[in-house]
Amino acid sequence: MAVYTRLGAEEMAAIIAAFDVGTLISAKGIAEGVSNSNWLIETQDSQDATHRFILTVYETRTDTADLPFFLNLLDHLAARNCPVPRTIHDVEGASHRFYKGKALALIEFLPGISVSDPTPVQARAVGQALAQVHLAAADFGCERTNSMGPDAWRQLLSDCRSDGLESIAPGLSRLVERELSVLAAGWPTDLPRGVIHADLFPDNVLMLGDKVTGLIDFYFACTDIVAYDLAVTHAAWCFSADGAEFLPDLSAALMEGYESVRPLSAVERAAMPLLAQGAAMRFLATRAYDWLYTVEDALVTLKDPMAFVRRLEFYADPANAEVFSA
Amino acid sequence: MAVYTRLGAEEMAAIIAAFDVGTLISAKGIAEGVSNSNWLIETQDSQDATHRFILTVYETRTDTADLPFFLNLLDHLAARNCPVPRTIHDVEGASHRFYKGKALALIEFLPGISVSDPTPVQARAVGQALAQVHLAAADFGCERTNSMGPDAWRQLLSDCRSDGLESIAPGLSRLVERELSVLAAGWPTDLPRGVIHADLFPDNVLMLGDKVTGLIDFYFACTDIVAYDLAVTHAAWCFSADGAEFLPDLSAALMEGYESVRPLSAVERAAMPLLAQGAAMRFLATRAYDWLYTVEDALVTLKDPMAFVRRLEFYADPANAEVFSA
Repeated sequence: MAVYTRLGAEEMAAIIAAFDVGTLISAKGIAEGVSNSNWLIETQDSQDATHRFILTVYETRTDTADLPFFLNLLDHLAARNCPVPRTIHDVEGASHRFYKGKALALIEFLPGISVSDPTPVQARAVGQALAQVHLAAADFGCERTNSMGPDAWRQLLSDCRSDGLESIAPGLSRLVERELSVLAAGWPTDLPRGVIHADLFPDNVLMLGDKVTGLIDFYFACTDIVAYDLAVTHAAWCFSADGAEFLPDLSAALMEGYESVRPLSAVERAAMPLLAQGAAMRFLATRAYDWLYTVEDALVTLKDPMAFVRRLEFYADPANAEVFSA
Repeated sequence: MAVYTRLGAEEMAAIIAAFDVGTLISAKGIAEGVSNSNWLIETQDSQDATHRFILTVYETRTDTADLPFFLNLLDHLAARNCPVPRTIHDVEGASHRFYKGKALALIEFLPGISVSDPTPVQARAVGQALAQVHLAAADFGCERTNSMGPDAWRQLLSDCRSDGLESIAPGLSRLVERELSVLAAGWPTDLPRGVIHADLFPDNVLMLGDKVTGLIDFYFACTDIVAYDLAVTHAAWCFSADGAEFLPDLSAALMEGYESVRPLSAVERAAMPLLAQGAAMRFLATRAYDWLYTVEDALVTLKDPMAFVRRLEFYADPANAEVFSA
C-alpha cells in the first residue's frame, strides 16, 4: 500500500488535461491497492462543479496487455447498473494512456467505505452485488485466463517447498499435499464459466450503511467457474480474520443474497465445498509464498497463511458441507 | 509517507461522528506527511452537500503536548485570512481527541497541489503568504521552543560523528565543524522573534496556478527569529533539488514578495546570509543523520545531505550575500 511513482504537480496537471474532466485542483496519493500507485484527484469544471476520480498508475505487477479487459469490464458492468466505477476515457477515446513508460487510467471515484466487521445485512448485499456482476458480465465477450488458478497455486506451493511449509506450521506440508490431490481429482470442469472478480474481500467493497456503493480492484478478474467466485467471497467474508471462527449468520446471508439474484444449479451447489477448498488453497498459497519470500517492512503487512489453513480445514470437513445447502 | 494506524470503517465512522460534520461517506488513507497517518475524509450533510477534511492521527514523533500550539495556530491564522486549513473542533469544542491512546485532529481540506518546478510568480506568492503569516501570528500569544534549532543541529551532527560525515563526503566533517563555529559566533540574538513555520518547502504549499491556496504541515512551527523562516524558505525554493544550481529569478521573486508585505529591517537583512547558512545547516543535519541511521526501505526515500551542503557553501560565500540586498 503505497505510491510507487512520483508525479510532480505539472506532470499531474498535464496527465489530467488529457481527459476532458476540468482543471486539476487536488491530487493526493492514496494508500490503496497493493501493487499500483493511486491518487485521489479532484477537478473543477467550467461551471465550478467539482469532480473526483481515482488515477491509477500501473506498476510492474500489472500486465498492461490485460488493461483493456479490466477497464472495458468496468464500463460494461457500470452500463448494466452494477456498482462498479466507470473508466474515464481520454479525449481520444482511449481507456488508458502511457506516461513515461507506465500505463495509467482515470477511474470514477465512488463514495463508500470498506467495512471491517460486516453485518449479515451487509453480507447479503454483497452476495446480491456479486450475482449481479455475474449476470451482467454474461455478454461481455472478452476472456482472460485466471492467473491465480489451480496451476498457479501448485507452482507457488511447490516454490514454498516442504521445509518452507513446515516452518510455517508443522504438518502443513502434508496437509497441503493431501488437499492438492483432493482438488486435482475433483476440480469441476463442467460448471458454468464466466467473468469473475476472484478477490472480493471486504477491502474491495465500498459500502454506505447496508448498501454496496462500489465493487473495486478488478485486477484479478478473469474467466473461470462462476460459483468459484462465490466460494472466494464466502471464504473472504464468513470467518473471523484469523480463520478460527466460522460466522454462520454471515454465511447464510451471503448465500441467500447471491441466490436471490442468481440461484445456484444443483451441480454448482454440490461443488461448493470443493470450490471453497480451492478458494482457501488459493489464498493459502499466496500468503505462504509471501510469508516465506517477502522481506517484511513497514510497507507490507504480511498476512498469516494459517488464517486460510483454518478455512481450508473447515471446508474440507464433510460435516460443514451443509453451509452451502439450499 | 504512509498510513501507520489501521482504522476500520466502523471505528472511522465513530471518530467522525464526534465532529458535527455530517455522515462519513468516504475515507482514503493518504500518502502524505512523514510521521503521522492521514486520511482524506468525505462527509455528507443533511442537505446532501459533501465536505472534505483531512483526519490526522498523530504517531509517536509528534508530542501531543504541542498539539494545542499547532492546532490553535491554524485557527488563529485562518481567522486572519491566511491561507491555512482551519481545525475542525469536536462537538465538545476540543481541537483534538484521543482514540485508543493516539491523538487525532480533523482539519479543513484545501484544494491545490504542490508545485515541483515553481515559477518566479509562484515564489513571489509564497513569499507574500509567509510574510502574511508572520504578521498575523504577532498576537497569537502562545510559544513553542524550536526543537530543530541550533542546539538540535549540533546534537544531530555530533551523533553523526566525524567518520559518519566523512563517509558521506570526504572533507564534510571539517566543513561542518568550521561552519558550526561561524554560526555559533555570529547567530543573532537581537532580531525580531515570532511564530515561524520553519519547514516551508514546496511540498508544504498548495497552489492553484499562481495562487497559494494552502500552507500546510505546521508540525515544526515554533517561536524563533522571524527572518530565519524566510531563510529556510529561501533555501527550500531557490535552488535546484540537488542544490547545485542557484535560481536567481526565484530568489528575487521570493524576497520581493515577502518584502511587499513585511519589509526586512536593516539588521534582519544584514543577518540573512548567516540565517541562510543556519537554515542549510539545519537540513544538512537532519539529512545526514537520517542518511547514516535510517534503514532505507520503500517507505522512506532518503534525501541526499549533499543537496544542503551545496546550499551551505553557496550561502557561506561572501560573494553571494548580494542575493539578500534590497
